[in-house]
Amino acid sequence: MARAEYPQPVGDLIEQLKRLPGVGPRSAERMALWLLQSSKAQPNGLAESIQHAAASVTSCPKCGFFATMEGCPVCSDQARDTGKLCLVEQATDVLPIERSGAFKGLYHCLGGKLSPLDNVGPDDLRIAQLIKRLEGLAGVEIILALSSDVEGEATTNYLMDLLVGYDCEVSRLAQGLPAGGILEHADALTVSRAFEGRR
Amino acid sequence: MARAEYPQPVGDLIEQLKRLPGVGPRSAERMALWLLQSSKAQPNGLAESIQHAAASVTSCPKCGFFATMEGCPVCSDQARDTGKLCLVEQATDVLPIERSGAFKGLYHCLGGKLSPLDNVGPDDLRIAQLIKRLEGLAGVEIILALSSDVEGEATTNYLMDLLVGYDCEVSRLAQGLPAGGILEHADALTVSRAFEGRR
Repeated sequence: MARAEYPQPVGDLIEQLKRLPGVGPRSAERMALWLLQSSKAQPNGLAESIQHAAASVTSCPKCGFFATMEGCPVCSDQARDTGKLCLVEQATDVLPIERSGAFKGLYHCLGGKLSPLDNVGPDDLRIAQLIKRLEGLAGVEIILALSSDVEGEATTNYLMDLLVGYDCEVSRLAQGLPAGGILEHADALTVSRAFEGRR
Repeated sequence: MARAEYPQPVGDLIEQLKRLPGVGPRSAERMALWLLQSSKAQPNGLAESIQHAAASVTSCPKCGFFATMEGCPVCSDQARDTGKLCLVEQATDVLPIERSGAFKGLYHCLGGKLSPLDNVGPDDLRIAQLIKRLEGLAGVEIILALSSDVEGEATTNYLMDLLVGYDCEVSRLAQGLPAGGILEHADALTVSRAFEGRR
């Protein structure tokens, strides 16, 4: 007698769900069984959403944000301030900035950050596209909004050096205490940056 | 200027993923972006697995475990000990028992447990099917393997009373310390059950 297992299609579904970020074997099993058993589940709705998004969502050739057949929601917005260009690592970094409401200009997604250990050099990022874009944006203000980890800092420094030769003003996001942050819980580097940037 | 948001298909996908058990807004966003951006993602593979499982997996009309067109992996296994029938709440409870290797008989999934607060009475469980099944299984040994929470205990007691009138031997799973469990960490009820059941 073989120990009973889930029928093949259930096992396959669990394997596929396990590939999602943050999903382990137990959660994948729980999700698969919920999809197949719960009266509230809409397995075909989920499947169609995945297929539709995968087929219709692309990367904006200009800024690298998500775009559809209707174009990029940022680049196609005529009300945007074309005198400001915010450089971010990933398309996913655009939304937190949009939600803050602090920036109304254009974006340029680099597609990553310099990381020699992972073999990511300047040619692997969308830097050539950035340079090309700058030709049409004389006097633009560039805001570097990369992460402040080691690779992010290295990329920021690389871009600061590179952009010296172009007709643009370059700044980077301030570092300091997070809003609502308590001094007691801040690490030493954050506190020292907050002191340096005091105003 | 409107704040840029994800294109509609991405938003729809996030909404669908958020419905999965244990998935909050942040994880749903992370999963959706991974599906659309990662070179390792196979969005269509996942979509097809969901559709295939939803279309091909049913409930075994006899025992209630997962079945496909090829039948139920338990009921169709000729090597099973048909003299033993294990009663569980859900089809999902079968796998942990199978993995333990401790039981080689047949199963009967009740489809839930008695819960007056949720309006679940005996007629909502697969009890009529159980009684019908017992007619063909004279002298069978029934093992009650329901959870040991209040509703599970109530269901166990209800079934014990009900099964008195039938030609079968009834037992229930032992309660006690979990394997590898430390006495210090066990709650009082578990310790008292472990004393009662000592042998």
